[in-house]
Amino acid sequence: MNGAEALLRTLVGSGVDVCFTNPGTSEMHFVAALDRVPEMRGVLTLFEGVATGAADGYARMTGKPATTLLHLGPGLANGWANLHNARRASTPLVNIVGDHATYHRRFDPPLQADLWGLARTTSAWQRSTARVDDVGADAADAVLASYGPPGRIATLIVPADVSWSEGGAPAPRHPVPPLPLVPPETIEEIAKVLRGGEPSVLLIGGAAMRERGLDAAARIARSTGAKLLCETFPAVHARGGGLPEVEKLAYFGEMAIAQIEGARHLVLAGARAPASFFAYPGKPSDLVPEGVSVHELVAPGLDVTAALDALADALADALGSGTGPDALGAATRTGTLGAGALGPQAARGRAGRPSGRLTAESMAAAVGHLLPDGAIVVDESITSGVSVPAATAGGPRHDWLALTGGSIGQGLPVATGAAVASPGRRVLCLEADGSAMYTLQALWTQARESLDVTTLLLANRSYAILQLELARVGATGSGERAGALLDLHRPTLDFVSLARGMGVPAERATDAEGLAALLERSFSEDGPMLVEAVLG
Amino acid sequence: MNGAEALLRTLVGSGVDVCFTNPGTSEMHFVAALDRVPEMRGVLTLFEGVATGAADGYARMTGKPATTLLHLGPGLANGWANLHNARRASTPLVNIVGDHATYHRRFDPPLQADLWGLARTTSAWQRSTARVDDVGADAADAVLASYGPPGRIATLIVPADVSWSEGGAPAPRHPVPPLPLVPPETIEEIAKVLRGGEPSVLLIGGAAMRERGLDAAARIARSTGAKLLCETFPAVHARGGGLPEVEKLAYFGEMAIAQIEGARHLVLAGARAPASFFAYPGKPSDLVPEGVSVHELVAPGLDVTAALDALADALADALGSGTGPDALGAATRTGTLGAGALGPQAARGRAGRPSGRLTAESMAAAVGHLLPDGAIVVDESITSGVSVPAATAGGPRHDWLALTGGSIGQGLPVATGAAVASPGRRVLCLEADGSAMYTLQALWTQARESLDVTTLLLANRSYAILQLELARVGATGSGERAGALLDLHRPTLDFVSLARGMGVPAERATDAEGLAALLERSFSEDGPMLVEAVLG
Repeated sequence: MNGAEALLRTLVGSGVDVCFTNPGTSEMHFVAALDRVPEMRGVLTLFEGVATGAADGYARMTGKPATTLLHLGPGLANGWANLHNARRASTPLVNIVGDHATYHRRFDPPLQADLWGLARTTSAWQRSTARVDDVGADAADAVLASYGPPGRIATLIVPADVSWSEGGAPAPRHPVPPLPLVPPETIEEIAKVLRGGEPSVLLIGGAAMRERGLDAAARIARSTGAKLLCETFPAVHARGGGLPEVEKLAYFGEMAIAQIEGARHLVLAGARAPASFFAYPGKPSDLVPEGVSVHELVAPGLDVTAALDALADALADALGSGTGPDALGAATRTGTLGAGALGPQAARGRAGRPSGRLTAESMAAAVGHLLPDGAIVVDESITSGVSVPAATAGGPRHDWLALTGGSIGQGLPVATGAAVASPGRRVLCLEADGSAMYTLQALWTQARESLDVTTLLLANRSYAILQLELARVGATGSGERAGALLDLHRPTLDFVSLARGMGVPAERATDAEGLAALLERSFSEDGPMLVEAVLG
Repeated sequence: MNGAEALLRTLVGSGVDVCFTNPGTSEMHFVAALDRVPEMRGVLTLFEGVATGAADGYARMTGKPATTLLHLGPGLANGWANLHNARRASTPLVNIVGDHATYHRRFDPPLQADLWGLARTTSAWQRSTARVDDVGADAADAVLASYGPPGRIATLIVPADVSWSEGGAPAPRHPVPPLPLVPPETIEEIAKVLRGGEPSVLLIGGAAMRERGLDAAARIARSTGAKLLCETFPAVHARGGGLPEVEKLAYFGEMAIAQIEGARHLVLAGARAPASFFAYPGKPSDLVPEGVSVHELVAPGLDVTAALDALADALADALGSGTGPDALGAATRTGTLGAGALGPQAARGRAGRPSGRLTAESMAAAVGHLLPDGAIVVDESITSGVSVPAATAGGPRHDWLALTGGSIGQGLPVATGAAVASPGRRVLCLEADGSAMYTLQALWTQARESLDVTTLLLANRSYAILQLELARVGATGSGERAGALLDLHRPTLDFVSLARGMGVPAERATDAEGLAALLERSFSEDGPMLVEAVLG
């Protein structure tokens, strides 16, 4: 068995059976081995940024890594931006990067670069396989490393001669150990803080934003009066279907400070201490208001869900009150919708069917009115999607995947991978026009794989976020030439034409009724569709 | 004056007056300053890979650097692949990368990454400006550093607070010193080798492939009987218009060895010793046949044109024969077209107008028949363009820009930058379908800037090079699943639709007459056009 086949068999044996790729010559033995290892599904992308983003989306939905197969330094570099987002999402992800044959590197051939140095800028674990005998063990180690905890990027560099040499042997799967628990003393310490009765905020993130974590957080908020907030850009946020609603920490610093101000304690559970996304002249980077004590309930890599459960139990025991689902249900049904309060999503119900002008608000209403049960919403809407969270909170159960690392071009690839991971669920990608153009090639893979992805392309025809930011950073004296670098009007991008060019059916909506009708159609048909919403 | 304005004024004062960019929040002060420094032309791209490739194309045509303006680690990473190609082309190029404010980095905000480590993998010079007082001097140093010699990537990282702080002052331009000369002893040594009468090959590359270098190389070949070859992927190759024709070193190793075999001496002038692009099992990486002595006429960074002139003069003096253009003309007119011989391009004349089926050959004939005088050919045709060099050799004077670093997605961006650099000249981009999809966003910038670029999109609907390579690396047992990862049929890419979606007029050709008519139309109209040639 050659090295490539041993590598593939090890990956599959370790539970990694989807490979997003755009291969090159140095990966041809891996490609050839796919015919001998049919358990591995190879998904072709037209650009590596699609492959890495898809692997991120896949792992967010399955909890296990996909692998990429990338071509030397350029392949890894093309995938870097979405690896960055995956890193910020704590996504487990395995990169296999083909390299020149070991003996070939000394000729410094054209495609050679500092691949090791490049991998280091995005990978928490990396190794270059030196001998075919090691490739199985290296692959098994890479998969284990990707789990962290927390989840991380593991990059295995495989020289071409390791792939083609005989003598490879698959290595057995490493068992993935359970997440380590938060020490009981820490739980008790935080419980004491929250029992103290001083105004407190519980800020959750990461795995705490799945069903069990949300329920536990809601119990804590109910029993202590703590205000519940969540991180701004979660990897996966379970929403709708009557799940507790959680207010997001605002993107803009002054709004985030206002959300926390008045509290004496800030308890972090899977989230980091609030800090500004960017720095602005004369504005603070640290968003923890003065006088607020920060307490870390869960250090990175520990089991945040179990910690919230334990904390909720400890607080409930102290109160002596019931904490079962019925008690929670009763509590949320009587909760308020005030800032930061724990709200009953179901009470809002579905948004009504919108009509008239197509605006950010009527677009949001259309989504809220029609969102299918079990949908996966991938959100790279930047400015245009601001009203969608409220419009969908009262809708059916869905998962919401955000842009975790700020590197645009994430939405379409993550939607692609999420759809590969979740057959039978509709993926709705809320995609801004400027961001879409970074990795539009994802549409072709959606068509090729007949994925159930609806891309709702929000065309405001500008980098609107930058028009805001230009003012916020206090840039002065800017006029026509500066403004021209933030506009996408000349020429107008025709996303219907672009999508059709890649084999994805596409239509344009110019009013709210039209948008609702097109979304309805896409949600009822198999396969991908793009709906361009021209926002007025 | 704030740091951003001082930076801009220094760049302009140093002769750098075109900026290819996709900016973000950390670059907003630079963007705003464009209105105060109108000498700098800002060119917006939809993806950083377009910006870096355009800067490469611009510098190849002007000999001076453009600047990019990139957004933090992700912006630099998105531009990495074409920086890699630029590095391999010895292109002078300045990157300005915006970074978080110095005091903001300790919060590890979402967009933060190891920007310094990332820059190091592609830049020969890099610096992070620490204080606004330094930004002028740093920018002037960056421009100087980009000239090398040889030309290189210089990356200046500019924190947001350096950009927005007052106290910046433009720095004066550093004079660019002339290229150092090859020592006379080396010239004499090589002259002695070539005078020896043993079979020799002169392999030229880099700046030797401009008019003066080609003329000198041709004189050397004529006076010594040396066989003239040139590197496979030149940054700029001056062709047509009666210039000496030079045979290219073949891409596939066994063919390259055959081109050199029989020689006793191999003289390198601006080219590296022949080595295989990739390694293949059982095939040599080193393409210098046994028994061939390698002599380096020009070390990297020295003046290859002057060296070839001096060598030609030395050899002519020894022979006592005339070496003026007339003598050369007479020699080339009587030369042979055999492998490696110095051929008279003009004698071939224009290719005839093709008709019938649209194949790689009739496509090449159409290009040869119609190529406008002074055209710039950007070649990312991979397998489909193999017949175009022969078909254009006898045509009018043109420049030929190749894929220097093997990282695909270079053609459309380089064509964009070459057109910005060369108003009044038609750019013809020979673009393979698989490669086009890497950086197709370049079309939008071509439309926006009304650039005279004709994209001849060669649709063979596969990664045909990889189908060849799959066999060459000896991969066995490959079948349907492996083949599927190399084909682009499902679904078919419609490049007419894709180009129109970005505002570029586009048509499809399915026979040779149709292709010729569409090329004729595009060459006679201003602005960009894409012609999709469906090759049978």
